[in-house]
Amino acid sequence: MAVSCWAWGAEPKLDELRETARLVNEHTGLGDMSTWEDPVPFDRVRLPPPRLPVPEALKDFCDAEPYERARHTYGQAYRDLIRAYRGDFGPAPDLVARPRDESEIERTLEWAAANQVAVIPRGGGTSVVGGVEARFDGPALCLDLTRMNRVLSVDADSRAALVEAGASGPGLNGQLPEGLQLRFFPQSYEFSTLGGWIATRAGGHYATLHTHIDDLVESVRAVTPAGVWESRRLPGSGAGPSPDRWLLGSEGALGVITRAWVRLQRRPVYKVSVPVRFAEWRAAVAAVHDLAQSGLHPSNCRLLDAREAALTSGGDGRHAVLIVGFESADHPVDAWLSRALQITASHGGRPDEATRRGGVADGGATGDGVTGGGRQRQDQAWRNAFTRMPYLRNAYPGLGLIAETFETAVTWDRFPALHEAVMAETSATCRFAFAYPDGPAPYYTVVVPAVRGEEVAQWDDLKRRVSDLLLRHGGTITHHHAVGRDHRPHYDLQRPDPFATALRAAKQALDPHGILNPGVLV
Amino acid sequence: MAVSCWAWGAEPKLDELRETARLVNEHTGLGDMSTWEDPVPFDRVRLPPPRLPVPEALKDFCDAEPYERARHTYGQAYRDLIRAYRGDFGPAPDLVARPRDESEIERTLEWAAANQVAVIPRGGGTSVVGGVEARFDGPALCLDLTRMNRVLSVDADSRAALVEAGASGPGLNGQLPEGLQLRFFPQSYEFSTLGGWIATRAGGHYATLHTHIDDLVESVRAVTPAGVWESRRLPGSGAGPSPDRWLLGSEGALGVITRAWVRLQRRPVYKVSVPVRFAEWRAAVAAVHDLAQSGLHPSNCRLLDAREAALTSGGDGRHAVLIVGFESADHPVDAWLSRALQITASHGGRPDEATRRGGVADGGATGDGVTGGGRQRQDQAWRNAFTRMPYLRNAYPGLGLIAETFETAVTWDRFPALHEAVMAETSATCRFAFAYPDGPAPYYTVVVPAVRGEEVAQWDDLKRRVSDLLLRHGGTITHHHAVGRDHRPHYDLQRPDPFATALRAAKQALDPHGILNPGVLV
Repeated sequence: MAVSCWAWGAEPKLDELRETARLVNEHTGLGDMSTWEDPVPFDRVRLPPPRLPVPEALKDFCDAEPYERARHTYGQAYRDLIRAYRGDFGPAPDLVARPRDESEIERTLEWAAANQVAVIPRGGGTSVVGGVEARFDGPALCLDLTRMNRVLSVDADSRAALVEAGASGPGLNGQLPEGLQLRFFPQSYEFSTLGGWIATRAGGHYATLHTHIDDLVESVRAVTPAGVWESRRLPGSGAGPSPDRWLLGSEGALGVITRAWVRLQRRPVYKVSVPVRFAEWRAAVAAVHDLAQSGLHPSNCRLLDAREAALTSGGDGRHAVLIVGFESADHPVDAWLSRALQITASHGGRPDEATRRGGVADGGATGDGVTGGGRQRQDQAWRNAFTRMPYLRNAYPGLGLIAETFETAVTWDRFPALHEAVMAETSATCRFAFAYPDGPAPYYTVVVPAVRGEEVAQWDDLKRRVSDLLLRHGGTITHHHAVGRDHRPHYDLQRPDPFATALRAAKQALDPHGILNPGVLV
Repeated sequence: MAVSCWAWGAEPKLDELRETARLVNEHTGLGDMSTWEDPVPFDRVRLPPPRLPVPEALKDFCDAEPYERARHTYGQAYRDLIRAYRGDFGPAPDLVARPRDESEIERTLEWAAANQVAVIPRGGGTSVVGGVEARFDGPALCLDLTRMNRVLSVDADSRAALVEAGASGPGLNGQLPEGLQLRFFPQSYEFSTLGGWIATRAGGHYATLHTHIDDLVESVRAVTPAGVWESRRLPGSGAGPSPDRWLLGSEGALGVITRAWVRLQRRPVYKVSVPVRFAEWRAAVAAVHDLAQSGLHPSNCRLLDAREAALTSGGDGRHAVLIVGFESADHPVDAWLSRALQITASHGGRPDEATRRGGVADGGATGDGVTGGGRQRQDQAWRNAFTRMPYLRNAYPGLGLIAETFETAVTWDRFPALHEAVMAETSATCRFAFAYPDGPAPYYTVVVPAVRGEEVAQWDDLKRRVSDLLLRHGGTITHHHAVGRDHRPHYDLQRPDPFATALRAAKQALDPHGILNPGVLV
């Protein structure tokens, strides 16, 4: 059992899990080891029986094997984690199909339309918004795209590659020629897939400028019940509304994304990154404001509030930490960093020059090698914590902790009131994941004690309260976590009504039987 | 008669027009003064009688006055110019409405739906693709938005402004607070409007990075027959497909764009621009390739081939000229330019340092002040020619010249074959208007002798031949001139079929009577 049906990544051994829990408990003071609860082992799980036999037409790549059904039941929201931890796989799909090519996807959609079976396209299954859960009546087939994971073509001249939708972050980058990378590293990088990134408009590596996968997509190909949708490879176009922008964020409701041409980057040669400490949160925010409007386009511009810095990056608990970084494959970035540090200094920021990193040779999963040395590097610490975070979360259900992360984007003029309201309502810590000239994308993490057995209701209540706040204060319900099923009520309030009308009509035309990921978007 | 019903801008006097023609003839050797033909004066024009009386419900802001109908008949394609020059206003709209607010637009749409009258939303009327022409059966009302031209609100903190759709370039910038600009300067800047830019995904000031109006739009509001469509002001979002991206490029077919929040720039303080000469076109192209992939993001990166440079910028006819420029309101850009000139030098480019411009105080329509001095400045010359070009074109019909400009974007790997095919088929000159990491946006100009009386057929034939070439070689039918009616056949070939299905369904849901700009997009 390589992949767990509840945990992030491989199934953890019980003693390792408890050890992780002890570390989390010691480090954060959160959770209660004395009431520790083990996950329900899979041999005690009772899945609902499949409502359908495996269809003859799909039997080469489709099954109803219980463990496969279980591990394809949920995404990775805390709401999902706690149910899976307790052995509740009620919404398990009846069937799991793992097509090897587009013709198998077409056969699946034809069969599903003829038999009124819902199809849930799935990449890495890392949705934190209920995007891949069969939360509806009637039978469901999970369409797992991860077997379609090849890099099919590389155009080094235009720095672009044609990649199948099921390629994961490491899988994709591992197949690219030396020196070329996508440089798109969401927190889910290890497991999430290109198709999932496109379907959810995921946020990636760059803190400014090319923040979303949208900017890295040159063309998209999708199989829809109305035929194959494929756009031209184009560096730019003004020919009508962009077809790619219709699929970006379509969350599996309009078609099954099968491949895309993506824009690549050369592996950076020049890199520099400096943590800057601020005694005042508001001064740090003002520094990010000015950096975002400077036209310097830092690749890293992530602000951690004092508590988040203490929890994840060895901060002292009194200073907010802004990590400012530049990278380039073309030129030294000293002039860029110098000006950025002038800006941060003008707001009272003190760079921690001792932990400055520069001229790094790449390595490791994200291309961000550790340069060695015993000293704690605050930005490196944060990067490690960033990718380790989901693994730590595995320990939360047993510890009796509820975790919710919520994120938004809002214009600068409205940010102070939004932030104040969130901090008054919750015990959140805050970081800025991305920053734009017209506003930041704040990301909040809340960890609170669970009432055992009531976690889902508790989480739903928390989600609803913070979502209300975000909308009331002018934010978006999501900057890069997508809508799924958990954000639907607030998404419906946020989007323009005539747009919803048009989207429904487009969906109906492409998917007249309504089989594609029902309940998502429309 | 302030605005001409055939010329670019104000109605030229006949002697001024003939003088312009003589200059064009002398400078280019094109055209034949001995066969000069004057425009048909308006008092000899016979408009088709309006098929409808002015409706009582709209009479406060709607009329059928002949000159108004004539000047709202066409856009600004050569195809339009020659017909208007000859006094042919066959497709004149029956009515011209000039609403002052959204309620008047709503009244117009209600009346039009009830009476099956087509409505053509119109900004500055500078379409070069037949986007504003009533090229269909049945009555038509031209909905001129230019009375709705105010800046309604400015958020200096987020650097954004709420602007009505009918504001022209100078009108918009003139209402912004000191120090803030949109910095969006299409060739049509003087007359075209924000609503038109959004509806057509216009291309603007920056040669790299934020090339289209798309990137400068924070939210859009439109009146549709299905209600008011208004998106939230958001710096970024991942909540479903972007509603704004559905309206960007919608060409008046989905709704009437009435206002938008746009992202502003601070007026640049540091500016530098250098012409770089190349003996070899291919070397110049390679330099643009490397610049576009460098991450330097030059604000100007426009390449003129040797003939285009000679015609428009005082070039010597043997060298291609690449104008490289950087601008910033935040920091000196010397490091940026130095690296850019290293790149151009590595391809044999020789900077004309004597004409380097830097540290310029802004002024003039585009904020690009002339710094004085008697010397010919190649980049300044090109900028002047750029905005003067449409005025020169006024002389073409009388001179017996046909002008066609066509532009595309294509990936680097396909550009050489596309370019070779275009140059073999036509006598075009070429410039790169915009450059992306994955490909350039070449812009071609063709001027050929007309067969008098056959100009429209000649132009249509030329358009079809070059459009075939662009598509065959992997380009887009338009990078920033939109689809309109002239590009429809090739647009239909280019877009994905299921996307067309979805777009038709969306249009049908929003505009069930099909009154909005029929024939455009769907």
